[in-house]
Amino acid sequence: MASDKKGIIERLNAGEVVIGNGGFVFALEKRGYVKAGPWTPEATVTHPEVVRQLHREFLRAGSNVMQTFTFYASDDKLENRGQSLKISGTQINEAACDLAREVASEGDAMVAGGVCQTPSYLSCKSEIEVKAIFKKQLEVFLKKNVDFLIAEYFEHVEEAEWAVQMLKASGKPVAACMCIGPDGDMHGVSPGECAVRLVKAGAQIVGINCDFDPETCVKTEVDEGGSGEGAAEGSLHEFPFALEPRILTRWDMHAYAREAYKAGIRFIGGCCGFEPYHIRAIAEELVTERRILPSASEKHGMWGSGLEMHTKPWVRARARRDYWEHITPASGRPKCPSLSTPEGWGVTKGHAELMQQKEATSSQEIKHLMEMQKKAKSSA
Amino acid sequence: MASDKKGIIERLNAGEVVIGNGGFVFALEKRGYVKAGPWTPEATVTHPEVVRQLHREFLRAGSNVMQTFTFYASDDKLENRGQSLKISGTQINEAACDLAREVASEGDAMVAGGVCQTPSYLSCKSEIEVKAIFKKQLEVFLKKNVDFLIAEYFEHVEEAEWAVQMLKASGKPVAACMCIGPDGDMHGVSPGECAVRLVKAGAQIVGINCDFDPETCVKTEVDEGGSGEGAAEGSLHEFPFALEPRILTRWDMHAYAREAYKAGIRFIGGCCGFEPYHIRAIAEELVTERRILPSASEKHGMWGSGLEMHTKPWVRARARRDYWEHITPASGRPKCPSLSTPEGWGVTKGHAELMQQKEATSSQEIKHLMEMQKKAKSSA
Amino acid sequence: MASDKKGIIERLNAGEVVIGNGGFVFALEKRGYVKAGPWTPEATVTHPEVVRQLHREFLRAGSNVMQTFTFYASDDKLENRGQSLKISGTQINEAACDLAREVASEGDAMVAGGVCQTPSYLSCKSEIEVKAIFKKQLEVFLKKNVDFLIAEYFEHVEEAEWAVQMLKASGKPVAACMCIGPDGDMHGVSPGECAVRLVKAGAQIVGINCDFDPETCVKTEVDEGGSGEGAAEGSLHEFPFALEPRILTRWDMHAYAREAYKAGIRFIGGCCGFEPYHIRAIAEELVTERRILPSASEKHGMWGSGLEMHTKPWVRARARRDYWEHITPASGRPKCPSLSTPEGWGVTKGHAELMQQKEATSSQEIKHLMEMQKKAKSSA
Amino acid sequence: MASDKKGIIERLNAGEVVIGNGGFVFALEKRGYVKAGPWTPEATVTHPEVVRQLHREFLRAGSNVMQTFTFYASDDKLENRGQSLKISGTQINEAACDLAREVASEGDAMVAGGVCQTPSYLSCKSEIEVKAIFKKQLEVFLKKNVDFLIAEYFEHVEEAEWAVQMLKASGKPVAACMCIGPDGDMHGVSPGECAVRLVKAGAQIVGINCDFDPETCVKTEVDEGGSGEGAAEGSLHEFPFALEPRILTRWDMHAYAREAYKAGIRFIGGCCGFEPYHIRAIAEELVTERRILPSASEKHGMWGSGLEMHTKPWVRARARRDYWEHITPASGRPKCPSLSTPEGWGVTKGHAELMQQKEATSSQEIKHLMEMQKKAKSSA
Repeated sequence: MASDKKGIIERLNAGEVVIGNGGFVFALEKRGYVKAGPWTPEATVTHPEVVRQLHREFLRAGSNVMQTFTFYASDDKLENRGQSLKISGTQINEAACDLAREVASEGDAMVAGGVCQTPSYLSCKSEIEVKAIFKKQLEVFLKKNVDFLIAEYFEHVEEAEWAVQMLKASGKPVAACMCIGPDGDMHGVSPGECAVRLVKAGAQIVGINCDFDPETCVKTEVDEGGSGEGAAEGSLHEFPFALEPRILTRWDMHAYAREAYKAGIRFIGGCCGFEPYHIRAIAEELVTERRILPSASEKHGMWGSGLEMHTKPWVRARARRDYWEHITPASGRPKCPSLSTPEGWGVTKGHAELMQQKEATSSQEIKHLMEMQKKAKSSA
Repeated sequence: MASDKKGIIERLNAGEVVIGNGGFVFALEKRGYVKAGPWTPEATVTHPEVVRQLHREFLRAGSNVMQTFTFYASDDKLENRGQSLKISGTQINEAACDLAREVASEGDAMVAGGVCQTPSYLSCKSEIEVKAIFKKQLEVFLKKNVDFLIAEYFEHVEEAEWAVQMLKASGKPVAACMCIGPDGDMHGVSPGECAVRLVKAGAQIVGINCDFDPETCVKTEVDEGGSGEGAAEGSLHEFPFALEPRILTRWDMHAYAREAYKAGIRFIGGCCGFEPYHIRAIAEELVTERRILPSASEKHGMWGSGLEMHTKPWVRARARRDYWEHITPASGRPKCPSLSTPEGWGVTKGHAELMQQKEATSSQEIKHLMEMQKKAKSSA
Repeated sequence: MASDKKGIIERLNAGEVVIGNGGFVFALEKRGYVKAGPWTPEATVTHPEVVRQLHREFLRAGSNVMQTFTFYASDDKLENRGQSLKISGTQINEAACDLAREVASEGDAMVAGGVCQTPSYLSCKSEIEVKAIFKKQLEVFLKKNVDFLIAEYFEHVEEAEWAVQMLKASGKPVAACMCIGPDGDMHGVSPGECAVRLVKAGAQIVGINCDFDPETCVKTEVDEGGSGEGAAEGSLHEFPFALEPRILTRWDMHAYAREAYKAGIRFIGGCCGFEPYHIRAIAEELVTERRILPSASEKHGMWGSGLEMHTKPWVRARARRDYWEHITPASGRPKCPSLSTPEGWGVTKGHAELMQQKEATSSQEIKHLMEMQKKAKSSA
Repeated sequence: MASDKKGIIERLNAGEVVIGNGGFVFALEKRGYVKAGPWTPEATVTHPEVVRQLHREFLRAGSNVMQTFTFYASDDKLENRGQSLKISGTQINEAACDLAREVASEGDAMVAGGVCQTPSYLSCKSEIEVKAIFKKQLEVFLKKNVDFLIAEYFEHVEEAEWAVQMLKASGKPVAACMCIGPDGDMHGVSPGECAVRLVKAGAQIVGINCDFDPETCVKTEVDEGGSGEGAAEGSLHEFPFALEPRILTRWDMHAYAREAYKAGIRFIGGCCGFEPYHIRAIAEELVTERRILPSASEKHGMWGSGLEMHTKPWVRARARRDYWEHITPASGRPKCPSLSTPEGWGVTKGHAELMQQKEATSSQEIKHLMEMQKKAKSSA
């Protein structure tokens, strides 16, 4: 079925701008189907209509890629935390592939199978053990014949390499994306070196976080994986339940899409916190370059032009680009600061606190964590 | 079918806390199915699965009331602005009733038919003409046998009275809710007087906005109609496309639900900007009083307890009430203020600028509006 | 000497705008001559050149009144807290009068003798005892022949009445000013009633804080006693050592002076935090009405016009009213909020915690206070 | 007289911490004796008592150096802008030396003669012409026998070198301080290279702005020239009349003094916006290292301990280090942002807009500047 469509590499080589999808875990957490903490995607099996609907919203908003909702869908993660239902990783991965393909077929979208970092790696399991986990997911992706593969949300380049090597063996195109900052991965490997190592491992598309200087990116293509709420990784103390004031407006997205395009990035998407209207904003900003508006724009109008039909005259006066392009929205929260201090204790793979366990943290353990936190702060 | 269920009045009289649903127009605008400006609900006909899904999310989050998605679904509004498809008001209202009933039946929820303010009133049509509009919607509600009726989102008490009088004639219980501030309606009628007039007109439940002092409320029942983004009425200059920094966190909702409960309010819901997780937060805050948790709480855990299973130790340390109850989230926007000056030109029904027209505002008219705005500001 | 000058009442009756002086305690604390906590004015004796200099700066900035620096200069206060030097209240009051008169004579200014609230009142001493304290200060004022009298910084109207009654007996004009908010004095007496009681007690000029609605002011004259740092009374948790971000700009002062003038206020001054340049801004805003610029304006230029001679072109571009009138200055503090929660434990005269003692608070007592504070917060 | 005192180099070599003075122009502008824009110091002649008083406040606060108030006191500057009185540069420089020496003699302070950048340099005058200007000031300093010399507030290293070379010829120790950011001087010369060039030119003490990474400083001694209001150079749009919200608290100063000390800096002072209480805070933070408290501390008490004697119990509860060390003061300005965008058009010596002229900028020229500004912003 996918054979008569152009693949991701052909599209990018032809100069097309490919729009990824937004974030599933945050959106479905707010809708009531994903649990913050474990963040596992069993909803593909228990509530398929919900996952299908979100795929459709992204397709309608302009996404060219339906990424399977298989984040944290490895068996070690599902067993390890949160997944009390008796649903296997294979079931979840298969259902996710079917849902993605079903909606992709309703438009001209590709399906990408996704893997991400594992608790096994954090708990110091061997390369063979960790690769076996990726292999199990990959077998489903091949059986379901996805169009390409994405290894994303890796904080350690070593684990990302293992994932890419495993995925690459399939012969499908592989994109790799790390969730790291300018200081590099959690072992201090620089962004530039991460990119080189991922390409060597076999990735044809390499993605890094948008808070990087774009010049450090590899020349080929880059998946801009910004976070719609600015803090996928939990370093902000507002993560994950008080990030609302940071949610990007659609106009923030316009600026971001333009900047990414200028930096030569041609595979542009988002992750945690990107709702369908954020994806639509990417498509609207790049309408000249892409020569197409998404279906969802019929319910929008460029730069707020739909307001021309508002009841109130002062709102109608806002139906213009100049108004929204320069707005500085108030937070409505005068007792809150505008910036907060990121957290993170400098611990990484191999530290006792990062060994993953099946049991929920006990209140005794939380007390211990609060003491560690206090120590981390006072020594900062 | 609805006959063996307790009605809204019986429930409130029995001391139950009834939870309303959240907001459809803002949520569906972000999902890509409602157009900001006209805000009309043709999605009930064009994309019923989308409306059904949102109803389900609210039901799952704890809503006891499925309000029909019939906001601005009067013929004069649909003709007047935005509704270019050839779908009649009757079609939209019927579809909305069917969808609400379908989902209500999946749980123990009631269906409420809703009407709201009309462009005809703003354009100085007569009482007879305006009442005829409400009557047309009411006929659908009766045919579809909704459980009770809500007249909501009225800025002029006179129009609200007309609506209540018309709805009351049906014999169904009527709730009335005005979107006004402490200075009263747009003609300066005080909140207290509004409430008295609405009760006299026949309303058994009277609702006012949460920015009121609760003591000014009538003693019986009150529907707390807060806005999840703080600005349903467009007076904030961030309305409607840059309200993100104001979106309430789930913890803001806990505080709001508690305060409403303390003030004696027993019908608690939300409007524009209330997502399913906001409704869930009301249900979770009042779990002791209501002795039931909603289905969606299986994907939450009280006060963030799901974080006990997060990978990172510093995030696990946040799995406790004390952390979230006192958080002051940063906006991440240091070049933005925390409060902005509300707009509103003091014009109301009868002013030329408020006469409603079918055509979208032209760029010539927008220039004129911008001049009015400048004048309004300098005289402030 | 003062006999050939018009008095304060004649001036106000003739429609003149009389400008008071700014604040001594905060300014001299920053210069190193007043101790925060006790706030007593022994500098009039120990460093007269410093007090003289500040009087001169206010005179030069446009002040028509040199108020004696006799704040907290009553014997009970001096003994009670902080004044370890062996200087009597009489010495301080006499020196203050001499300094005020010396500088007043260099211009066309009046001298006002000032009394304020006493620790004796807070410690439940009798009317007779409290009045005896005011009497002792008054005797100095009469001996030194001040032009009029001010009873200021009273939080309890009862004590203010006692002060006014005592001062009135002298035959000199009396102004009275309370440092209260819209909720009235610390016993809950409303602002309106406070004003009536002070007039009945003999005050010809009644002043209230600028955070009042001006309509509640008595018709005659009102001394606008705003605080340059927004928190004379210590209710803000930034008081007194972290108020910098709240210091008014000169442009804030322009707006304040205009508003006070519009409200009919004709005796306009400031208290804690008002530096000479704030007073100059009052004089510059009201230059048309007063037909005179102060000497200090030779070093200013209206609305920043002195910037016409700045080196940098982008700073020269700011030499215009429009620029400064609408500026919203950034705080440069993104980790700080814009508003904080006022403190105050609801205790007043008669509570044990308000009984004044000679000894400094011990660390044991501070622990006890911190516990009270915690309790006050959690019950709020 | 100065011969029996240890000199600046001996003191620093002996490991002493030498405290400089704060800022004269901003403090005296607020007191009414300096005009913002020209910023010239004619007050040394017209109001010597005012300059003497400020010197005394700094001495009392702990300053070990009385820098002559000779900022912008070169003849070309005085003629060029603002100085309409017929007072020569020589008169101003002489008076400044006398005042500094008079107050220095009241304590154990040194006198430093200061020169700064000139309009002649900006207007492309030759090295010979610019050096002649410094020479004229130097002759006064030698006649008045100052203890050492400071070349400060230079934005171009070339001009600073000329100044140092000229001053060095006198045989007195020379300190040099540039007001540049991490990007180097206005011609792009890096901080490190600036330091090397200044040392080569003859400076024994080299100072840079506190926003530098201290590691980039030369090893010997460094004068930390922070700005109390954060914007000496005018790049902030709040400069110079709306900087209030940025004024450092005394606790900010504690942190700054500690950080400077840790970085090995031993000559610590301040410039624009540093009031006497800021200098006192440096002295109080370093009391253990310096084994002496300044006189002004008798009116303070470490870490707010004077509050032990406040009337209100909740203010007494603040008499402790822990309270003030961690305070995040609110701005009280909810309609203002916390950060603003710095300005600066990238123009430097040689650009037409920087050629200095005698006449004040006309309103025609201001219009032109506003257009340049608009262009600079839109191209940013």
